[in-house]
Amino acid sequence: MTQPSTAPHAPADPNAIDARVFPPSARRGSDCGQLELAGIRATELVERHGSPLYVIDEAAARSRASRIRTALQAEAERIGTTATVYYAGKAFLCVEVARWMAEEGLAIDVASGGELAVALAAGADPARIGFHGNNKSEREIARAVEAGVGTIIIDSEIETERVAAAAARAGRVQRVRLRVNSGVHASTHDYLATSHEDQKFGQPLADAPRLVAAILAHDSLDFVGLHCHIGSQIFATDGFRESARRLLGAYPELQRLAGRPIPELNLGGGFGIAYTSAQADAVPDIADIARELADIVAETAAEAGVAVPALAFEPGRSVIGQAGVTLYTVGTTKTVQLTGSDAAADPADLGYAERRYVSVDGGMSDNPRPALYGADYTARLANRLSDADPALVRVVGKHCESGDIVVPREVLPGDVRPGDTLAVAATGAYCWSLSSTYNYVPRPPVIAVRDGASRLIVRGQTEDELLAQSVVPSPHEGDLGNGAGK
Amino acid sequence: MTQPSTAPHAPADPNAIDARVFPPSARRGSDCGQLELAGIRATELVERHGSPLYVIDEAAARSRASRIRTALQAEAERIGTTATVYYAGKAFLCVEVARWMAEEGLAIDVASGGELAVALAAGADPARIGFHGNNKSEREIARAVEAGVGTIIIDSEIETERVAAAAARAGRVQRVRLRVNSGVHASTHDYLATSHEDQKFGQPLADAPRLVAAILAHDSLDFVGLHCHIGSQIFATDGFRESARRLLGAYPELQRLAGRPIPELNLGGGFGIAYTSAQADAVPDIADIARELADIVAETAAEAGVAVPALAFEPGRSVIGQAGVTLYTVGTTKTVQLTGSDAAADPADLGYAERRYVSVDGGMSDNPRPALYGADYTARLANRLSDADPALVRVVGKHCESGDIVVPREVLPGDVRPGDTLAVAATGAYCWSLSSTYNYVPRPPVIAVRDGASRLIVRGQTEDELLAQSVVPSPHEGDLGNGAGK
Ligand SMILES: Cc1ncc(COP(=O)(O)O)c(C=O)c1O
Ligand SMILES: Cc1ncc(COP(=O)(O)O)c(C=O)c1O
Repeated sequence: MTQPSTAPHAPADPNAIDARVFPPSARRGSDCGQLELAGIRATELVERHGSPLYVIDEAAARSRASRIRTALQAEAERIGTTATVYYAGKAFLCVEVARWMAEEGLAIDVASGGELAVALAAGADPARIGFHGNNKSEREIARAVEAGVGTIIIDSEIETERVAAAAARAGRVQRVRLRVNSGVHASTHDYLATSHEDQKFGQPLADAPRLVAAILAHDSLDFVGLHCHIGSQIFATDGFRESARRLLGAYPELQRLAGRPIPELNLGGGFGIAYTSAQADAVPDIADIARELADIVAETAAEAGVAVPALAFEPGRSVIGQAGVTLYTVGTTKTVQLTGSDAAADPADLGYAERRYVSVDGGMSDNPRPALYGADYTARLANRLSDADPALVRVVGKHCESGDIVVPREVLPGDVRPGDTLAVAATGAYCWSLSSTYNYVPRPPVIAVRDGASRLIVRGQTEDELLAQSVVPSPHEGDLGNGAGK
Repeated sequence: MTQPSTAPHAPADPNAIDARVFPPSARRGSDCGQLELAGIRATELVERHGSPLYVIDEAAARSRASRIRTALQAEAERIGTTATVYYAGKAFLCVEVARWMAEEGLAIDVASGGELAVALAAGADPARIGFHGNNKSEREIARAVEAGVGTIIIDSEIETERVAAAAARAGRVQRVRLRVNSGVHASTHDYLATSHEDQKFGQPLADAPRLVAAILAHDSLDFVGLHCHIGSQIFATDGFRESARRLLGAYPELQRLAGRPIPELNLGGGFGIAYTSAQADAVPDIADIARELADIVAETAAEAGVAVPALAFEPGRSVIGQAGVTLYTVGTTKTVQLTGSDAAADPADLGYAERRYVSVDGGMSDNPRPALYGADYTARLANRLSDADPALVRVVGKHCESGDIVVPREVLPGDVRPGDTLAVAATGAYCWSLSSTYNYVPRPPVIAVRDGASRLIVRGQTEDELLAQSVVPSPHEGDLGNGAGK
């Protein structure tokens, strides 16, 4: 290894398992320093269930869910109201996870008929399901109404009529929220506030009175409040403040229209997590966020002159992200010299003479977030400890695509080699759910680990299943007489 | 409609079906101007096979394949050599398409064991398959060797040993190419040439002699030449010139090492296509590209003082891209005012007072290219002609994600409305292959159309299939005793 151990961005210990990034149960065991999850060696998980493998730490998922719920509810209580915490199923949903969430007292937010089916199959109380989407089909709306879904979030004018008609047909009064654009967009440390928005979700806040009046005109609809989701991977609460101020600013007029207080305010999800140790210092505790959010609501409700409404939130990533770890097996490595390269060098790479490309047996098919969002992750050697000098690495996948990157920049022991097991942290959210079968690479299974035991919660695919998607015409089949391909 | 019909980027006719973007068989029928593909109305296809729907025009795919092959082969012949054209299956592969390609005289380039299985199931001649991948598993290598795959493209040092061992075990002599980084990266109009590369594919050209010597040392390997893929969606040949010059520059030394001429040069794929009418003017004809490439090879071989090698190419997108059309159904629309917006306005939107968001029943699940690459597309009303004033639209999907965009910017008749069928052109490549089931939205089927007939070539998924991926523990099952979720 040629790079100095004083390289500017090298972690103190490239074997360290940062409990702020990995699930709390992750630790180096006494057995050669192998990574253990819920008391099981990562290598054993791979032997049992295959590689690559999505692992969800059940205790971590449950405790995060429960902590987020209790923190938000305690603070809501402090300001004299209640909070419902919906788990945003789009982050990662399967029957088991939906069941955990229900058992931990969370409601469930679904964004399609398919997600609704999963929540119902898990035995979730339909009354505690919120149904989202900018383009729900009429069939999806009818199913949601008939299933007795608690709230449907109306995203456009035409949906008011569709939901009202479906509810009338089903002889039900359907609770609905209206999704608005508050004009606030938040990301990690910043937010941007505009007077109105050029995006696909929701209706301009200025149109809310007209749209709410249209909702109120239907006997089959019960309007419960406004909804707004301002962004994702948010660390600061300022964006929520501006958004709450804007939404609650509309409540006096809505209240006049309704002739009664508007009972609820849904502030969406978006609480951030740490994907890397560098990020971890900046991620606020959920207790602090909850306290700030409650103060914000109390304050902005007072400003608007309305009673503090019941609150609702929809965290996804912050519940499940850090409970997930993906295990991969290293197939090949190669070293690229960086010194003297005329390729544009990342300043973070300064001090390293070379970059090791570590290819694993998955990639953008099981985690497209680096390709989609330039997302960062943390990787660790899972099958052993090593005191080799640290090396600058890029963990890449096996797909025929140069953007097929798993971890763009990591520092690992320099003897990382074929056959090693790598653990990539914080893959619980938006990895399985966004996964593809690019290059006919089957989707890996998802297992849950708890108390020294592992079990399958989502089946992996086989290559035969993928192949069977192809229709092979028999020589006599088809209207084209060209069935020679059998 | 408030925008002037002189809006700067409005097409002359927002109903026009540009034959340089849509497949040649696409036309407006006499029946209310409905879009027809291979003589079948788009609306009828959706009635028969569902919506969204991937449609591949078989004649278009076959004729593009055959035109590309014959153009490259004719020009190779002109310079006294031959050309093998591999269809890059990563663009879109299923048994039917692999069969068409084989029938049109193309070889097949596969990038995984799964793609190999599809090609073999199609009855493709194994000797005409090239096997790619920066991280082939040992199992994949063994399968490829045992299947009698014509060429394996070696991507790293360790692979030389793995392929040699697998070939020796199988008692075969395996033809191999070495993938190198030429340092040339081409995109649409530009190329970038560096002295070496910081990317996951291939080996530095400077290392080729050492790596080829290692290959030559194995009796079970037959080294046939260098391979290099310089990029994608390329309109100009300058990048190929620089790459060919660099690769052939290494041939004299490789020839010395081998004690014989190096028979072959593989220049990869990457020929661009038109996704929009604006791009169409700039896309060169394949005959011109073929002529330029042949001249380049003849010239650079002469410069290097080597005989003109046999050529190989791996086009994917240029073969299948324009044969594909995706049909969607509009679910909702909404209008956002642009004038006076404090949101950053795209200069192309100047002159429009508003943007229509047109939501369809698919999105980033069936076409992630806009989210992944900021890709552009062309959309047209398919179920009718309309002489309504043109409107600036953004076609968006139904996913809970603001980046879920199908066509970022299009001009359509302003009366586009729920229930309309939209056709999005040039979706044949890298759409189905990269598709996901985000939000539990099932993958749509793929149908082939030809001579007034349609047939299924890739099955769509059902929501039940997606739901069945969840493992639902029975009350007595599992090692955790928590099977209450049934
Ligand atoms: C409406 C809505 N609610 C909740 C979420 C969940 O966000 P996160 O996972 O960042 O908490 C999203 C994410 O896209 C969303 O669109
Ligand atoms: C090695 C190789 N060959 C061929 C192709 C096909 O490229 P295109 O579809 O742009 O022709 C690719 C695309 O990624 C590739 O990586």
